[in-house]
Amino acid sequence: MSPAKIPRPAAELAAEAIAVRDSTIPAAYRLPKGTVLPKNVTTVLATCGLLSAAELAIVDLDATRLAEAVAARTYTAVEVATAYVKAAAVAQQTTNCLVELFAAEALERAAFLDAELERTGSVVGPFHGVPVSIKDHLDVKGHDSPSGFLDMVGNVATEDAHMVQILREAGAVFYCKTTNPQSLMHLETECYLGVTASPWNTDLTAGGSSGGEGALIGMKGSPIGIGTDIGGSVRSPAAACGIYSFKPSVRRLPYGGANIPVGPAGYEGILGTHGPMARSVDDLEKYMRLVAASEPWRKDPTLDVKPWREVQPKRLRVGVLRDDGVVRPTAPIRRALDAAVEKLRASGEFDVVDYAPFRSAENWEIISALYWPDNGKAVYDHIAGTGERVVPLTQWIISQAGGRQRSTEELWALVARRDAFRAAFAAHWAAAGIDILLTPVGPSPAPQHGTAKYWNYTSFWNLVNYPAVVFPTGAHVEPALDAEEQGYAPRNDAEAYVYDTYDAAVAADAPLCLQTVGYIGYEEETLWATKKIVGVIQK
Amino acid sequence: MSPAKIPRPAAELAAEAIAVRDSTIPAAYRLPKGTVLPKNVTTVLATCGLLSAAELAIVDLDATRLAEAVAARTYTAVEVATAYVKAAAVAQQTTNCLVELFAAEALERAAFLDAELERTGSVVGPFHGVPVSIKDHLDVKGHDSPSGFLDMVGNVATEDAHMVQILREAGAVFYCKTTNPQSLMHLETECYLGVTASPWNTDLTAGGSSGGEGALIGMKGSPIGIGTDIGGSVRSPAAACGIYSFKPSVRRLPYGGANIPVGPAGYEGILGTHGPMARSVDDLEKYMRLVAASEPWRKDPTLDVKPWREVQPKRLRVGVLRDDGVVRPTAPIRRALDAAVEKLRASGEFDVVDYAPFRSAENWEIISALYWPDNGKAVYDHIAGTGERVVPLTQWIISQAGGRQRSTEELWALVARRDAFRAAFAAHWAAAGIDILLTPVGPSPAPQHGTAKYWNYTSFWNLVNYPAVVFPTGAHVEPALDAEEQGYAPRNDAEAYVYDTYDAAVAADAPLCLQTVGYIGYEEETLWATKKIVGVIQK
Repeated sequence: MSPAKIPRPAAELAAEAIAVRDSTIPAAYRLPKGTVLPKNVTTVLATCGLLSAAELAIVDLDATRLAEAVAARTYTAVEVATAYVKAAAVAQQTTNCLVELFAAEALERAAFLDAELERTGSVVGPFHGVPVSIKDHLDVKGHDSPSGFLDMVGNVATEDAHMVQILREAGAVFYCKTTNPQSLMHLETECYLGVTASPWNTDLTAGGSSGGEGALIGMKGSPIGIGTDIGGSVRSPAAACGIYSFKPSVRRLPYGGANIPVGPAGYEGILGTHGPMARSVDDLEKYMRLVAASEPWRKDPTLDVKPWREVQPKRLRVGVLRDDGVVRPTAPIRRALDAAVEKLRASGEFDVVDYAPFRSAENWEIISALYWPDNGKAVYDHIAGTGERVVPLTQWIISQAGGRQRSTEELWALVARRDAFRAAFAAHWAAAGIDILLTPVGPSPAPQHGTAKYWNYTSFWNLVNYPAVVFPTGAHVEPALDAEEQGYAPRNDAEAYVYDTYDAAVAADAPLCLQTVGYIGYEEETLWATKKIVGVIQK
Repeated sequence: MSPAKIPRPAAELAAEAIAVRDSTIPAAYRLPKGTVLPKNVTTVLATCGLLSAAELAIVDLDATRLAEAVAARTYTAVEVATAYVKAAAVAQQTTNCLVELFAAEALERAAFLDAELERTGSVVGPFHGVPVSIKDHLDVKGHDSPSGFLDMVGNVATEDAHMVQILREAGAVFYCKTTNPQSLMHLETECYLGVTASPWNTDLTAGGSSGGEGALIGMKGSPIGIGTDIGGSVRSPAAACGIYSFKPSVRRLPYGGANIPVGPAGYEGILGTHGPMARSVDDLEKYMRLVAASEPWRKDPTLDVKPWREVQPKRLRVGVLRDDGVVRPTAPIRRALDAAVEKLRASGEFDVVDYAPFRSAENWEIISALYWPDNGKAVYDHIAGTGERVVPLTQWIISQAGGRQRSTEELWALVARRDAFRAAFAAHWAAAGIDILLTPVGPSPAPQHGTAKYWNYTSFWNLVNYPAVVFPTGAHVEPALDAEEQGYAPRNDAEAYVYDTYDAAVAADAPLCLQTVGYIGYEEETLWATKKIVGVIQK
């Protein structure tokens, strides 16, 4: 009789996974024991002494400028990779944003690229020597994709995800995987590896679900990375960490090689997309152009056949959404939006008009139900695989779907309702006659850990499938300016909750970002308009 | 006590609907009582004496040439409408292809267009004065859309379908609705209005489900019309009636305003598309360009944002599918394909290669199940509405899905299988390295009424969602040439059935058409290549 196999406790497995992850940080790049970190850790990179002045200059560049500098031989790919490995090590130790750092492989790849440039005299592609960070649940050949579940640790990818392939062929250097939350469905990032924090204030979430990317790029630990978004997952972390991100309409970017262990294969009620997270609008566009030029639809028949279109310049009519009718933005968000509108108006370059919200509560009712066709069964099955702790936000988001499995007929009715909503919204948008919408990314700056529960400033654009960009205004929460008005009577429980959990003092230094939204499938026009808008707002 | 309402017998309701339809044919355009029709009724238009020589010249033009002639004031829109009302009346009386003819409205509209051209000196749009026929289940404002079900008679549309709007704005003249079968899911056209026949041989089906369009256009009773296709429904009738049709990939053409009373709203397992049916490849392209130029995606957010792309000319590599591995084409189809390949090779303008079939049987297993997520409940509910006769092909196609309602989990698994099939097929296509495929439209010429049961030469391209064109080779069945080979041992029941139901003598004069297929989403390249191929084959 063989002895029964005794399952190991989840806490022990998690501790081991964390130790393995920590061991991937090279010893030379560890912060001294006992280092006392400020809440705003964005200063640590420059003060920790690990990066030379040249390396600090490298990590200051966006991906576009960095690619130019490598192509011009201002920096070698090895120098760039070294700087970013160091910066990522610091980012991990300050924000807990990594699943793995693979420095040796990155340096080997960088050396190969340097040799190629030397040998051929030209770059292998538009991302030659540019480090690109990858969200946990997207496959990078030879690396683990636990995707936020403890029972998936050791899920080593045998192939690159489709977009990883495209970037690799374009000369990118991969060096790390970044955290995402248990279930992939939080606007925060907490899993068995712990909580990922905003670099600007570690009492606040890095956002999610691409929170590892947000924190890493916000720390200048990456010039550009790939996240995914089905409710705000590239936009919430961009806002929480003060960077740029883009969620295109679905079917524009390839999704092959993404692990989606949270719902049934073959379910199409609501689709996600991956999207770039970066340091500038130029970078977002560089990424989109690369993917379109690769003709990804030849390999993936789910994608639209859509070469990148050049935009016809025009005077822009900008709509402004000040309140979605359910949760009014908190004081700092109102301040940021007011300042932005003021600048746009003052520039004389835009027609700026108010834009009325459209059935926000209904939107959430539909999309939150669409998220969980199996009532969370796949998620709970993974959790049961090890008995890992259920993160409260996992339970909360699944509960939003109503707490029961819908019948086939109910699911069809829900999809029909989605389509009717989309058609009605297209008419609403057309009636507004706007080219681009300026809106908050959420009702508050980066929330305190565990409290991000109002999704609809981002998830609205997933249900209707409009492209959306997040960008930093350059401003941050200032407790003296951003205390919430006294005596405001919340209109509903969701609003009361947001106002209860916002505290200007606690949120100090949180970046203030805004979101632009363009018409469905108008990725080109949306980025073009955003660049014009950002140019004025950041002045 | 009020008297109980006694339901009227279905036969009585059907007879009334037929009488109402017949009454829409102007008395002056009725064939003399006792007229004996030949089996090949394509000759009747010229011999019946209803059309003048000028009118016969008008109905000989394709839509492209006709639009040019009206714009050049060679013909007035009223002259054109008059010619087509007459021709449609003849088509109805010979093939049973109409649901309604509305001559007065058409002539009024044509007079308005003539006045506009007079007043402004220019056409209102690229279809100025071009009559366009519309399939039953697509809405035309003020007209009935019974959609093949007796219980939907009197379903008067209050708005134009989206594509009808686009054509109306472009100057089209609407004058009739054309038949489709009960359930919309036959490759023939039989409903409470009876059977629609091929103009080339009325013992044979006009194909379906857009069989009314096929017969009408084949009779020169319309220059161009709109059908719909989810398994071959614009292609089978084009082949049976000797005309052209185009099934683009889904999401390229707007589908709003189509009555789809045969399945649950919100179901997305397999999607149909509408498509033009016409007299030339030029007409198909003219139609596609018009729709793209209207930017239909601004109104319908389910559509791809895809302006029409200009094609880069190239030498074409043409694959030839001679046998799908399940049902070998019958003798006349093999003859037509051999002759076409011979001409393509002889021209020296193409690289012609054999192309291997890909998992045809599995394709049918997947798509036939995807057609009936509700196991035909919606169809049988409509039939029960009046107790109309179940057309045997209705019962047959629903039975192909397996005869039971699948669970939600089974439907997801089926969609996942669809996606895996699509991905595998894209790799197969890429490996073949072809630009365009030349293939039969079906294993036989237009089948005898009630026998069209092998769909996979067309439905394959719906499951994988590739654009496909049907065109006439110019040849027809010749009993002396096209008898089936003696002693061929069918490989399976489906093949045995096709060979049993094909008879060269019965099929005399049936047109021999072929199909071209291009890569998913490559509508532009597919039409461009087809035009080159047709130019050589029809020489």
